[in-house]
Amino acid sequence: MELYDGVPRELSALQKKRTLYQPELPPSLQGTSVRAVFGDTTTAVDMYSSSLIKEAFPLTHGQRLAHFLCEAEALPSLQLIRESSVIRVGVVFCGRQAPGGHNVIWGLHDAIRSHNPDSVLLGFVGGTEGLFAQKTIEITDKVLSAYKNQGGYDLLGRTLDQLRTTKQLMGTWATCEALKLDGLVIIGGVTSNNDAAHLAEFFSKIKCSTKVVGVPVTINGDLKNHFVETNVGFDTVCRVNSQLIGNICLDALSAEKYYYFIRLMGHKSSHIAVECALQTHPNMVFLGEEVETSRPTLQDIIIEISDGVQARAEQGKYHGVILIPEGLVESVPELNALLQEIHSLQNERVTAENISSLLSDKASTLFENLPSFIKKQFLLFPESDNAAQLSQIEMEKLLAHLVDLEMSKRMKEGTYKGKKFSGICHFFGFQTRGALPSQFDCNYAYALGHVCFYILAAGLSGYMAHITNLKNPVNKWKCGAIPITAMMTVNQEFQFPGATAVGKLALHPAKVDLKGKLYLKLKQKASGFLINDLYRNPGPIQFEGPGVDAKPYSLCEELMC
Amino acid sequence: MELYDGVPRELSALQKKRTLYQPELPPSLQGTSVRAVFGDTTTAVDMYSSSLIKEAFPLTHGQRLAHFLCEAEALPSLQLIRESSVIRVGVVFCGRQAPGGHNVIWGLHDAIRSHNPDSVLLGFVGGTEGLFAQKTIEITDKVLSAYKNQGGYDLLGRTLDQLRTTKQLMGTWATCEALKLDGLVIIGGVTSNNDAAHLAEFFSKIKCSTKVVGVPVTINGDLKNHFVETNVGFDTVCRVNSQLIGNICLDALSAEKYYYFIRLMGHKSSHIAVECALQTHPNMVFLGEEVETSRPTLQDIIIEISDGVQARAEQGKYHGVILIPEGLVESVPELNALLQEIHSLQNERVTAENISSLLSDKASTLFENLPSFIKKQFLLFPESDNAAQLSQIEMEKLLAHLVDLEMSKRMKEGTYKGKKFSGICHFFGFQTRGALPSQFDCNYAYALGHVCFYILAAGLSGYMAHITNLKNPVNKWKCGAIPITAMMTVNQEFQFPGATAVGKLALHPAKVDLKGKLYLKLKQKASGFLINDLYRNPGPIQFEGPGVDAKPYSLCEELMC
Repeated sequence: MELYDGVPRELSALQKKRTLYQPELPPSLQGTSVRAVFGDTTTAVDMYSSSLIKEAFPLTHGQRLAHFLCEAEALPSLQLIRESSVIRVGVVFCGRQAPGGHNVIWGLHDAIRSHNPDSVLLGFVGGTEGLFAQKTIEITDKVLSAYKNQGGYDLLGRTLDQLRTTKQLMGTWATCEALKLDGLVIIGGVTSNNDAAHLAEFFSKIKCSTKVVGVPVTINGDLKNHFVETNVGFDTVCRVNSQLIGNICLDALSAEKYYYFIRLMGHKSSHIAVECALQTHPNMVFLGEEVETSRPTLQDIIIEISDGVQARAEQGKYHGVILIPEGLVESVPELNALLQEIHSLQNERVTAENISSLLSDKASTLFENLPSFIKKQFLLFPESDNAAQLSQIEMEKLLAHLVDLEMSKRMKEGTYKGKKFSGICHFFGFQTRGALPSQFDCNYAYALGHVCFYILAAGLSGYMAHITNLKNPVNKWKCGAIPITAMMTVNQEFQFPGATAVGKLALHPAKVDLKGKLYLKLKQKASGFLINDLYRNPGPIQFEGPGVDAKPYSLCEELMC
Repeated sequence: MELYDGVPRELSALQKKRTLYQPELPPSLQGTSVRAVFGDTTTAVDMYSSSLIKEAFPLTHGQRLAHFLCEAEALPSLQLIRESSVIRVGVVFCGRQAPGGHNVIWGLHDAIRSHNPDSVLLGFVGGTEGLFAQKTIEITDKVLSAYKNQGGYDLLGRTLDQLRTTKQLMGTWATCEALKLDGLVIIGGVTSNNDAAHLAEFFSKIKCSTKVVGVPVTINGDLKNHFVETNVGFDTVCRVNSQLIGNICLDALSAEKYYYFIRLMGHKSSHIAVECALQTHPNMVFLGEEVETSRPTLQDIIIEISDGVQARAEQGKYHGVILIPEGLVESVPELNALLQEIHSLQNERVTAENISSLLSDKASTLFENLPSFIKKQFLLFPESDNAAQLSQIEMEKLLAHLVDLEMSKRMKEGTYKGKKFSGICHFFGFQTRGALPSQFDCNYAYALGHVCFYILAAGLSGYMAHITNLKNPVNKWKCGAIPITAMMTVNQEFQFPGATAVGKLALHPAKVDLKGKLYLKLKQKASGFLINDLYRNPGPIQFEGPGVDAKPYSLCEELMC
């Protein structure tokens, strides 16, 4: 069996060393005979969602929670998973790459093979495109050898991220039938797990026997709710970001002449920004969720930053570090309205040159006053999922540019008497996603891979692999499975019972909870960050020695249940 | 004694752990009675330089090489350094921050205090500005505690980098007299060590008894010649860069849809780009030195990249990684000519709006055809040292933009039939300079700090602290001191005897040697990089376990002597 691209990889010394690391497994996954315990039938978080879920998932709604226990933990009367049968499983990477994705496949492979060496695991090459085209490689120990505990999704690659249209569902069915798959494991984030639930319902309806399982793997960390604690990849990406932000903070403090505006990944939610801010203590951080709630104008934000710059200048400080999530541009009401207008016009096939003349008065005035670089970026076509190309919109440059104008104005008016403001901009995105996964992500992903096997072996479909108690050592982790429909809501945010529900039924990305412990901790600490330079540098991820088992703040501080 | 900014730093777990690491010392620095051995009188590398050196440094040229040996290694007849006297030493950070700078101060402090606890080490706060203003803190164990093995220059900070004009020389003299300094240690790169030599000559002339010592600390790695093997900070910065480039390579390979254009630091030389390319195996790398030699036009470079993109597309590959040094813009003849014209006009105080109308025909045509973002960046005022603001000139974006145009043109003409080209740009600079220094940089810097003490104790001035055999373990390192004038040439590049010499006498940044072993190795390997994805990810710097003592390729492969 050849490697995916047929080229022998030259692994660095550290990469090689990492391939030899054997992740820990929770006790419940170590036994030779894991048993499933079923909990209560799941219900939606509110009545309105409940009726919509029943309507959209007539066959798969309300399934029971499942827990996996080892023989020693479980009563012998519990269902013993038919784990010795030969099974055939397919696995596909959906959506953006997250460090640790390879370990899900490895864990799945080890669990499958340890129960029956004749079982088969097929990896789809090139994401959903490979799935539709039945393009597979058989996952073996040899194939895995260079990918164990490695970053990226390059073992299989990925292309388009959708598994949604009738054509796509039919294509998946055809593949599962042709390859005689007992199970299909979808590795991805919010959208992909949503797709997995719909696929399970579709398969149930057409009596396709392939069971569908989702795995929470996304750097955004937004597949989070009262069941799910965190996602594979979030820890690594936040730690690489925090390493770089920590470096930038020391750079700022050493040269004492630049303000660094750093944009982080995070479209619909600002979890990465929160985690990184708690790790590194920048002078300021703006969260999409705060801005959506307090609804400042762009100018309000500029004034806030400029006031901070001025207050620091009065202390003789001409440097600083400011974090924003890439989604901030869509959180500022006037910029979001402008983007929406542009996208509507683009949908009507209006060309870029004509768009500005067709904007509403308000949007047009705003647009004309923006610097030319950002105008061009606003006019980029939306991505496949209809979202703005946020990775290409340099909101950090817009802020730095406008703060520069504001400080120059204050200087001219004589209200600011300090040195000239000097901003430097960074976007930390692509350089973190291919990182070697942290020990936590290695262990979490590998264990989730095992859980996928037990879900399939228990004959469940439409479930997400699930591990809780993650803030504790691996030997305390609890494993199970959650029906994906049980996490669906009709709101963008996760809503507690009783909240008014509007919108589309789906698994929605979780927003940063502005009433949650983690956010309150950030706010409390952040008041000291603005003027004092309390910068902290977590340094590069370590794979040996103390600190190797570090976990995200968000996980340890915030747990909702 | 307060810390520099008076604020208690909250160190991360890893930062704290690093403060506890005790760097190794070479045997010659471990003894209680280090002896100095003097070698031959130094001569310039060529006759022309020699006469200029004698003219510029009538009092300090031609000093002898010094080696430091421990008692066991040395004959008792050798000069015993008067190491028990009380001495007063000042130390200043000059130029851009490099990881490991703090350890030079620490090593110097430990050597000074271990020989006489009454000796005093004063750190100048805020670089040369602090030096002129006599703004100091006394370096003590307590002050150092939070800065041991830490990145940045934030213990003392730095501001302007010059120590050159008569006023600056006089100011330094005044400070040295006022503070009764026996020695002044200047931590910096090429420019700062050059300044140190001139200061030593000046002090000798005016009979100021303060001895001046330089230390080779610069991330650029360009303070390199037949004496000096590498510089403090280069290893760390290359490794952080390589970590990120390695991540980007995996990202490219996972998503298979983007070309990443990555600009690295390196003004006059491309050492960082060479080291990073050897660490990560990108598809293409352009070095300033190659371009200066082969003198392609901008369009030639665009064609070369586009041909690579096209060749890869024919293999079904739509992703790639391309490295450039920030100095590349000045290496492309037509862009350099344009920048020179702009700077001349700026020196004549022509305003930005009027510059384009005053350019020569050729420069004007080029300028008008550049995209607007790069026009603005070309018009930025040069930095203090009269160099273009290369960190602000997004050459990687210019290349990506022009390759995009070229590929679109080929597509329209039907000569390219692949998918649309998609470029993403990065600049890796500021996020590496504040990094926790690698074990190598920690050890190298700490030992150099000790060497500074022995240079001063031996009564030498105008010398640079010097360690060789660095590619071997610390216990094989050889310590000594080189008269700075012995490394001066009249050429930009280091020239071997017999070469024609033109230009200004100075310590010049070393260029990448296009006939050297390291470059030839890169060229040999790089032929396979273009089409095959031989990406390699060295991963984050590790501080424990195997690999902790990794060293730059450049050091191990290239050594000139």
